[in-house]
Order: sequence, then C-alpha cells, then structure tokens
Amino acid sequence: MSPGVRAEQARRTRAAIQETALALFATRGYDATSLQDIADELGLTKAAVYYHFPSKLELLQSICEPVYARVSAIIEAAAAQSSRQRRIDVVAEGFADLTVGRRATISVLAADPVMHGRMKAASRMDDLLGQAAEVLYGEHPTPDQLLAVRAIAVVSDAISALPELGDDEAREVLARAVKRLLPRR
Amino acid sequence: MSPGVRAEQARRTRAAIQETALALFATRGYDATSLQDIADELGLTKAAVYYHFPSKLELLQSICEPVYARVSAIIEAAAAQSSRQRRIDVVAEGFADLTVGRRATISVLAADPVMHGRMKAASRMDDLLGQAAEVLYGEHPTPDQLLAVRAIAVVSDAISALPELGDDEAREVLARAVKRLLPRR
Repeated sequence: MSPGVRAEQARRTRAAIQETALALFATRGYDATSLQDIADELGLTKAAVYYHFPSKLELLQSICEPVYARVSAIIEAAAAQSSRQRRIDVVAEGFADLTVGRRATISVLAADPVMHGRMKAASRMDDLLGQAAEVLYGEHPTPDQLLAVRAIAVVSDAISALPELGDDEAREVLARAVKRLLPRR
Repeated sequence: MSPGVRAEQARRTRAAIQETALALFATRGYDATSLQDIADELGLTKAAVYYHFPSKLELLQSICEPVYARVSAIIEAAAAQSSRQRRIDVVAEGFADLTVGRRATISVLAADPVMHGRMKAASRMDDLLGQAAEVLYGEHPTPDQLLAVRAIAVVSDAISALPELGDDEAREVLARAVKRLLPRR
C-alpha cells in the first residue's frame, strides 16, 4: 500500500471507531461501554482500537472536540457583531445549526450523567458557555442572563422530541426558541 | 409496637429507601444500582427493601409519582385561567416552584438516559407535556409551541448550574426564563 492509501485507511478506521463508540455510548452509556466492546462491534482487535485511541476518555474527547470547535467559532462570530441583538442572533442561529447537524453527538453529550461528570473535569463546554455569556452580556451577567446561556444547550436537545421536523424547519424552530430565551437586557 | 407506631416506622423506612435510591441513581446511574446496593447502603436486608418495593422500577415510579402529580396539578390550574398569558404564567411559575423544591429528583429524572428510556414506556411525563401543550396552545400546537413546552423541563434543570442562587431568586429567574421561552402566539 502507498502511504496515501494507508493514511486514508487509518482515517476511515478512526472515523468508524468514533461512530461505533458514539452509538454504543448512546445506547449503553459511556461507563458500560469498553474499548473491547467497540473493537468487537467493528470486528477489530482491541490493539487496533488502542492504536488510534490510547484510552476511552481520549476517544470521547475526539468525538466532542469538533463540537467544541464549532461552539468556539460561533462565539467568535458573535463577538464580531456590533450589537447585542445581532450577537444573540448569531449565537441562536449557530447553535441551531450545530444541533441539527449533529443531533446524535449532542444528545449523547447532553444525556449521559456519567459522561457528564467525567467530561466536566476534562471538557471545555463550561468554559465555552462562560465565554458566550461574556460575549453576550459582558463581564457581569445577571442570573437571568446566565441561566439563559446555560439553557441553550439543553433547549437544543429538546428538538429530539420533534423527529418529524425536517432539518430546515428544525433549525428555524430552534433558533427562534433560543432567541426568545436569551434576554435582550 | 402499636399499629400506629408500626405504620409510622414503615413510612420512615419507605422514605429512607426512596432517598437512598435517588442518591445512588444520581451518582451511579439507575442501571448500575441494584436493590441490594440500596439495602446495603441502609443496613437493611434485601427482603426488607422488597417488602416495600417489589421491583426497582416500582421504586423509581414511587419517586417520580409526586413530581407527576404536581405537574398534573399545575396543568389543571393553568387550564382554569381565562387567557393564554395567564396560563403561561401559571405553568412557568408552577414549574419553577416544583423545580426549586425538588432539584435532586428532577435532575436525576432529566439526566439519566437509561432511566429515561426505561421511564418512557412506564411514565407519564410525555403525556403530561402533551396535555400542557394542549392547555396552552389548543389541539394543534405549532412546532415552535411544541418545542417550547418540551423544553420547560430541561430549562428548569439548567438552574443547577447556578447553585449560588437562593431558592426564592432561583424560582423567579426560572419562571422568567420559561415565560420568555413559551410563545405568546
């Protein structure tokens, strides 16, 4: 095999491991899923999985990282706006877009308390929501403003209760809900 | 022991089992907690726990039931109001009050995906939210209205991110968030 083909195959194996892990985390929970389970599901050896992800936590982080990167980009785009109303619009539309595009990842992230506890130490979501609050409301947000920012992620998750909506409508419904939720003052 | 004393002791044991179960469900998750674990934690025999709760699911339902009863009462009170704005206010204030009074129970209910899946078949929360949507918005709610009603429970849970708030302020902040979230039209 040429190096290019080998790299492409490694990329595909990595993606397959992430996808299978996400599906198992969602159905069994993070704690009840082992790297061995993920290997078995894919017909790989445990060593092959370890080669790509030295620990289950690193595997989880690799799944979460693109979501955090998107959230970070949304906050940056919001910070570049000239009014609070426009910053709120950018955050609402950004989260709606992110949620609808990655329903599976986000509902796993939001739903698993074990993962949640585990992620708290390791993760950046708390920091990111703190940054979002500062971009939207300055250095000293009120409790109303803080609660609303914290609630963005969970409201987004509620869209899973409306599976009959197409992606475009789901995105619009969600963006409107987040805009209502975020106080203008 | 007189029958009255015995009944009082049974009531206390029942409450202790429910409280311990809730704490273990919250830390370990519903699936990873057995009736034996609960018995061990309390220094009871498994038979003593079985006497009060023939299965783990019945124990869970006994913990959830008072929450559902409160939600049902909130919906009934909302239905008795003469305008949508007043119905929204009653729902928002009722949920805020319920959440702040029972933060522990509600965050367990909201957070555990296994429990969530298990409860779906057995539980009434889906029905109750459907009833709330009908009381607030009639027989054919729009997707915006439905999403907002579904999101009430999860927004309430976000209050746990603000542990420094006293109960009264937490209640007011939450009620205002739910009122903003629920569309007036």
